[in-house]
Amino acid sequence: METATPDLPVHEGVVALTQALCDVPSVSGDERMLADAIERALSIHAPHLDVLRDGDAIVARTRLGRAQRVVIAGHIDTVPINNNLPTHLEGDAETGTLHGRGTVDMKGGCAVMLALAVQLDAPAYDVTWVWYDHEEVASELNGLGRLARTHPDLLAADFAILGEPSNAVVEGGCNGTLRIELRATGRRAHSARAWMGENAIHALAPALALLANYEPRSIEVDGLVYREGLNAVSISGGVASNVIPDAGVLTVNYRFAPDKSAAEAESYLRELFAAAAPELDLVVTDSAGGARPGLDAPLAQHFIAAVGGTPAPKYGWTDVARFAELGIPAVNYGPGDPSLAHTDDERVPVEQIIACERGLRAWLTSA
Amino acid sequence: METATPDLPVHEGVVALTQALCDVPSVSGDERMLADAIERALSIHAPHLDVLRDGDAIVARTRLGRAQRVVIAGHIDTVPINNNLPTHLEGDAETGTLHGRGTVDMKGGCAVMLALAVQLDAPAYDVTWVWYDHEEVASELNGLGRLARTHPDLLAADFAILGEPSNAVVEGGCNGTLRIELRATGRRAHSARAWMGENAIHALAPALALLANYEPRSIEVDGLVYREGLNAVSISGGVASNVIPDAGVLTVNYRFAPDKSAAEAESYLRELFAAAAPELDLVVTDSAGGARPGLDAPLAQHFIAAVGGTPAPKYGWTDVARFAELGIPAVNYGPGDPSLAHTDDERVPVEQIIACERGLRAWLTSA
Repeated sequence: METATPDLPVHEGVVALTQALCDVPSVSGDERMLADAIERALSIHAPHLDVLRDGDAIVARTRLGRAQRVVIAGHIDTVPINNNLPTHLEGDAETGTLHGRGTVDMKGGCAVMLALAVQLDAPAYDVTWVWYDHEEVASELNGLGRLARTHPDLLAADFAILGEPSNAVVEGGCNGTLRIELRATGRRAHSARAWMGENAIHALAPALALLANYEPRSIEVDGLVYREGLNAVSISGGVASNVIPDAGVLTVNYRFAPDKSAAEAESYLRELFAAAAPELDLVVTDSAGGARPGLDAPLAQHFIAAVGGTPAPKYGWTDVARFAELGIPAVNYGPGDPSLAHTDDERVPVEQIIACERGLRAWLTSA
Repeated sequence: METATPDLPVHEGVVALTQALCDVPSVSGDERMLADAIERALSIHAPHLDVLRDGDAIVARTRLGRAQRVVIAGHIDTVPINNNLPTHLEGDAETGTLHGRGTVDMKGGCAVMLALAVQLDAPAYDVTWVWYDHEEVASELNGLGRLARTHPDLLAADFAILGEPSNAVVEGGCNGTLRIELRATGRRAHSARAWMGENAIHALAPALALLANYEPRSIEVDGLVYREGLNAVSISGGVASNVIPDAGVLTVNYRFAPDKSAAEAESYLRELFAAAAPELDLVVTDSAGGARPGLDAPLAQHFIAAVGGTPAPKYGWTDVARFAELGIPAVNYGPGDPSLAHTDDERVPVEQIIACERGLRAWLTSA
């Protein structure tokens, strides 16, 4: 089936553009149409940029020979839609609220980037704009990670900004994230003679009790306080309605402060569950370290001064951690309340989208 | 696709016949081919029987005008196969062990019935032989239940024997069975900001802890001791690996002694879980009362005397409870250790199959 690539309204303001980006659904793995639309908009409206495509990631660079280069990046995928598309604007385009999947995480940021990429043909720094795929799924699929592995030269920069939702204020660093499976093994039997078997679902009880009673910690790092979280995100087990189950799996997501590495976070969980539920197998299925705030870099200082506001900690893991790994100082700055990301009533005050465009424009035109 | 109906070796001994019945897979819902084979064998080899087909149930009756009629019944479906077919015989056909799905639950019993149905053209009582479908799944699908609702006249009798595995000794009555779902409701949020959501999987923790710590009771009824069981048979929950889940379901199977009705068993569970996990919704999804031993009926006494041995309690729920509901005294009597039913290494000593054939034949030819 041939589907026409949508035209994006890059000159009609960032609110209309956010809405247009959201209304091209792009759940992780299904980003192609939106990537095509962005690539097409750049090829038509931004002749001053070198545009490259890698999978469903797009890299667009100025080549002005400036002394410093910055990366400004955002992911174009979203979590699954849940009756929350197409978007709808409540109120007017200056003060209203835009509702729908992706309005917060993070097509508002992508729209700000796209509008400025098209308009700013002579920014104060050379800019590498990156829109990428597969951020909302397993770490090894991440489009920015793929670029870092296969084209690290494309990401070379002195500073990076990630347009993740941060209520239009600068958020430094990020928590790390670890996903583990706790696997129980038992022995099947007819449920009428349960004593002949060993119930693997029952064996998950102490681990689940630990999670239900766990008090997550708040940890200060470089002056910012990071709030942690330890949660079941999936549970499964069962063979048939009259069989004692021989297998059960509890999947746990640990969001940990950037005072520790992913390896240290893993050791912590291993100790925790070895004490509470020694008979379970613990298998790490996803792991990504956090990033310390990194607000002392000169470009970060200049950026904070230009956009204003007081920097805050970033709770969610974001790809600033990938820049941290490449040795590039990076911060989060984008429209939207991150606590509304992934919720069914995801929504953004349009003022925040406009504020981010203004902030980034001020910085990029005032070096 | 046309598939030929298999020929069953009804004259080659009950061991070969058990093996043949097992080797025609008949997982619940997929009994047609085996039902066809049994119907065909009766039509060829048992002209003395009136044979009726209802769905995948077969009813075959003598019409000898005897003073009393007995029903001898068995289900032809099995739980799912788990690399345990085709059957294999370890040792010889007189003293060996037959391995494979269905050898215990309950194609050994079905084979004994089929061999005797064909051979005994003038039994001491009129006999109604019943092979039926859908015993291993939800109660409302049960083939014997369907016959009881739609053709109760076909089941009219003074006494009933169910060929369920009982180690070839008479097992009286049966436990009841109740299946409930405990449903938790929460609120989704990004797992990086878990405090914005409400984790429905965590909400299952107290109910699961109750099950893991529960000490099942043993209850004496009419001189036989019934052992109960309370077990998780399924658990599920989870939206995505970075989302706090808003729903979780724990499915529980309660096997209860025949001192109480299904309604009383339900009340007991409601009290138990209301105290431990008041925020969960409890929904009954399957319910079937047990049966008291019923060994005082004259035909039961005669049967026990003919086959020998000391009656024991039946732990598993069986369709004797359906006969109890119809007012027909009923017992379990069949080859195989019921504690091996549904296990991967389901297996039967062939001596038990032969013993059951001998016992039933002795009774039916000695009134």
